[in-house]
Amino acid sequence: MKPRVLLVECQDRPGLVHGITGVLFRRGVNVVGNHEFVDRSRQRFFMRTEFDGSVDEAAVLAELRSVLPPEADLRLASLAPKRIVVLASKEHHCLADVLVRHSFGELNAEILAVISNHTRLAPLVQKFELPFHHLEARDGERERHEADVLQCVESYRPDYLVLAKYMRILSPAFVQRFPARIINIHHSFLPAFVGARPYHQAFARGVKVIGATAHFVTDELDAGPIVVQQVIPVDHTHDAEDLAQAGRDVEQMVLARALRLVFEDRVFLCGNRTVIFD
Amino acid sequence: MKPRVLLVECQDRPGLVHGITGVLFRRGVNVVGNHEFVDRSRQRFFMRTEFDGSVDEAAVLAELRSVLPPEADLRLASLAPKRIVVLASKEHHCLADVLVRHSFGELNAEILAVISNHTRLAPLVQKFELPFHHLEARDGERERHEADVLQCVESYRPDYLVLAKYMRILSPAFVQRFPARIINIHHSFLPAFVGARPYHQAFARGVKVIGATAHFVTDELDAGPIVVQQVIPVDHTHDAEDLAQAGRDVEQMVLARALRLVFEDRVFLCGNRTVIFD
Amino acid sequence: MKPRVLLVECQDRPGLVHGITGVLFRRGVNVVGNHEFVDRSRQRFFMRTEFDGSVDEAAVLAELRSVLPPEADLRLASLAPKRIVVLASKEHHCLADVLVRHSFGELNAEILAVISNHTRLAPLVQKFELPFHHLEARDGERERHEADVLQCVESYRPDYLVLAKYMRILSPAFVQRFPARIINIHHSFLPAFVGARPYHQAFARGVKVIGATAHFVTDELDAGPIVVQQVIPVDHTHDAEDLAQAGRDVEQMVLARALRLVFEDRVFLCGNRTVIFD
Amino acid sequence: MKPRVLLVECQDRPGLVHGITGVLFRRGVNVVGNHEFVDRSRQRFFMRTEFDGSVDEAAVLAELRSVLPPEADLRLASLAPKRIVVLASKEHHCLADVLVRHSFGELNAEILAVISNHTRLAPLVQKFELPFHHLEARDGERERHEADVLQCVESYRPDYLVLAKYMRILSPAFVQRFPARIINIHHSFLPAFVGARPYHQAFARGVKVIGATAHFVTDELDAGPIVVQQVIPVDHTHDAEDLAQAGRDVEQMVLARALRLVFEDRVFLCGNRTVIFD
Repeated sequence: MKPRVLLVECQDRPGLVHGITGVLFRRGVNVVGNHEFVDRSRQRFFMRTEFDGSVDEAAVLAELRSVLPPEADLRLASLAPKRIVVLASKEHHCLADVLVRHSFGELNAEILAVISNHTRLAPLVQKFELPFHHLEARDGERERHEADVLQCVESYRPDYLVLAKYMRILSPAFVQRFPARIINIHHSFLPAFVGARPYHQAFARGVKVIGATAHFVTDELDAGPIVVQQVIPVDHTHDAEDLAQAGRDVEQMVLARALRLVFEDRVFLCGNRTVIFD
Repeated sequence: MKPRVLLVECQDRPGLVHGITGVLFRRGVNVVGNHEFVDRSRQRFFMRTEFDGSVDEAAVLAELRSVLPPEADLRLASLAPKRIVVLASKEHHCLADVLVRHSFGELNAEILAVISNHTRLAPLVQKFELPFHHLEARDGERERHEADVLQCVESYRPDYLVLAKYMRILSPAFVQRFPARIINIHHSFLPAFVGARPYHQAFARGVKVIGATAHFVTDELDAGPIVVQQVIPVDHTHDAEDLAQAGRDVEQMVLARALRLVFEDRVFLCGNRTVIFD
Repeated sequence: MKPRVLLVECQDRPGLVHGITGVLFRRGVNVVGNHEFVDRSRQRFFMRTEFDGSVDEAAVLAELRSVLPPEADLRLASLAPKRIVVLASKEHHCLADVLVRHSFGELNAEILAVISNHTRLAPLVQKFELPFHHLEARDGERERHEADVLQCVESYRPDYLVLAKYMRILSPAFVQRFPARIINIHHSFLPAFVGARPYHQAFARGVKVIGATAHFVTDELDAGPIVVQQVIPVDHTHDAEDLAQAGRDVEQMVLARALRLVFEDRVFLCGNRTVIFD
Repeated sequence: MKPRVLLVECQDRPGLVHGITGVLFRRGVNVVGNHEFVDRSRQRFFMRTEFDGSVDEAAVLAELRSVLPPEADLRLASLAPKRIVVLASKEHHCLADVLVRHSFGELNAEILAVISNHTRLAPLVQKFELPFHHLEARDGERERHEADVLQCVESYRPDYLVLAKYMRILSPAFVQRFPARIINIHHSFLPAFVGARPYHQAFARGVKVIGATAHFVTDELDAGPIVVQQVIPVDHTHDAEDLAQAGRDVEQMVLARALRLVFEDRVFLCGNRTVIFD
């Protein structure tokens, strides 16, 4: 049986840990791991507790409510696989890595479908026997394309969307349908090189390190809460294409780590920042 | 006023966090940071709580004892500077970095004296107006040298000894006088390259990464609990001397990080491993 | 048309670069990249020159011979894909990454077949429509298993063998059939944790960094020339299984980088070390 | 005797390496290390050759001119220490590290003086028995302060200026007096967080990695050619002050590495990028 997790977020006040752990102790909950954090800049309290065994969850939640502020965000989640839809374009490396991990049960997620505006990755997805939807994005038909994507996505009722090098900017209207539920891999160390062709920007700037950033998508381009960042050293012998190639390996690893964290309910949002209990 | 820290270590059992936080809450302790960890392989519980303001510490400790197993190791430490003696030999980089941080109040420690088996670093220490003891280590007089060092060290009654490239092996008898109180910087990524001339070993082995390890000294050479490790990439153009030079920068940074962690009471021992609340 | 590479290795002596570049210049070879290195500890000279366009290669080689010591190792290689056989066991991550890169033409190699002592990875290999040979390794039949593997490998006449987590030790007799042609991914930062269960060793030692090493296989276990090493930080919250999971991502990236370097003829051996022109 | 270096930069054309090495070979120059690089985006050729022993340098240079394009930038430099002036403000860590390395002969530079707009670091500089000039920067007197600094700097006729956390923006007029001769340490991973208070910017953005950048100063703020960049991981538990503290250790190491590269004549400029022969 999968362990379960209790997630608490609320305004900070004295006695919260004592109160919450008291409920769990009295109810006989077998805690196997516990993290808490207070963000002092916002006075927000975050707690993630992993536990084993069976308890009367409704009763636990009710009693927890009694020791928490009324506005508290309280969730009792199973660590069951999340339902996800993956959006890709023409680049295969992130999608392939996600498909491989999925097929060996490493992702804690069920991939419901892959959507792409190109057909190049259809054979890859078919190898893994998953639905592939080619939704073309013709010039001047951005709205129509997005409506098609939205309809397709919603037909699967996913918990999360994963943009595995989708390379298109989603409209605020689209993003707002999935608040804190769209994860993107950006091909640079944000906030450096926002926008398109970051490896050409990085080459022109002559950086000595390049990186990748996995983040939640918000209304503002490439400005959403960051989950994972990682970098590798480069030097003057690398042209823009070399940087892109080196970057792809980092992107793949960064996205995989971010998905693991999100799908195991280890990531809280705190304004535009993330609190991560790893 | 410096914050104070409560440190608890004991056999794990249900309800510990609830019990401890209950005492702190009822006594009006203003907790500003809290970490706990259970090592499942040994069923040991570790907790570090930082708090502000004044409390009746004797009463808090007494009440905490009542909710903890009898064997619990319970300390209420101020974050006041630790008293330390630094041992060095001929290499200056780690010692100089420690002296600079000390002189600008960054070390959370008071350097009582520097001891060396050579005179080379005397002028450096004198710049910082600290006692420098040259205790010569003649061939065949290892025991006598160590006795001299021991006498000198004990005259200062330090909390910790820092081996800033001391380059000599201390006897078990010496080490046992200062259990978990001697911090060494080893010039390799342990457990690779135990012992002497690790950069020559690293060159001969053709490694592509070198590192440094800060660890507590125990009876067994280079086998004590590790506090901090860090590495940097190298390549075939580096000879053993280049590796040593690159390594010195890492050693300096690794030792500084380890001392900060230890002197802020952030490091617990768990068998031969460390639990670090950073 | 793929660029071609000239590889030179010989005893060092004055005038080598001048002599070699003179031949290339007079023959109108269009050099697009050039690296040379002298290993002073062995007085060996290494040079790798990449060039475009067509030249009379036999004439260039003959003229080069006239300016080099007689013992010089001189090769004019195309950057055409290498022919490889991959050996795996039960772990999928390295094999899957290699298969994906291969299927998208990123590997500069042609995978002729995959051999495994288990059947677990057969479905993965079949997705990519490559031959999969299950050669069972029964207890007490090590020699027979190895003979089966050797026969199978040799039937493909590969340039290189890739051990993608093969997890078995090959005999010196086997290894000597493929000198500097077997690439292994070792699940630790060598020379730390040679041999089996390195993540358990790493956990027991309490290291703060784990890594992976891609190296050529020689007679001595885990002691062959290192091609790529990389590490990631870990902490006390990681148990041996967590370390293994974190390690797998590094292994995958390290093996991919090593294969790129070797298959693009960027790696020279220099005793037990490698010279890498990246 | 210090080795000497030959530095060549010119428009690329076939036969350059052959021509240059021919001159060196015929003149009996004992080459101990050689690097060359062609930047294809600009068709520029760069070469750095280190050699031992005595040669008729005027004759070598004259003969080299005959095999190079007329516009070639050709220098025969000794690896003698560079003459430098260091500018600082109130932060000690970078200055102290530079002073320590200088006092142990590790910097390949002679520090002629330290200039600061504050007095805080005077005692530190005096420990190392170097001239310290306090040039106050009153509000509204930026031009006057800069004129004072310029006069003071020029009185020393330095090869390079090192901004060791100088924290003030120099005017284009000042910068143009020292083209490619002012080295700055910037407290972030450029081009992220240009300008003031980068650690507050980094905290607000919620980055998971912070870094430091050593670069040449040009007219445009924080946009000059980058020499060294390095990063360290951070997490949600770090507030802006923690980020700054972690960042200081990286700044110190990054500046030290950049100074070593520049003072050993290993850095060429190529437009707004650097070519580094390490």
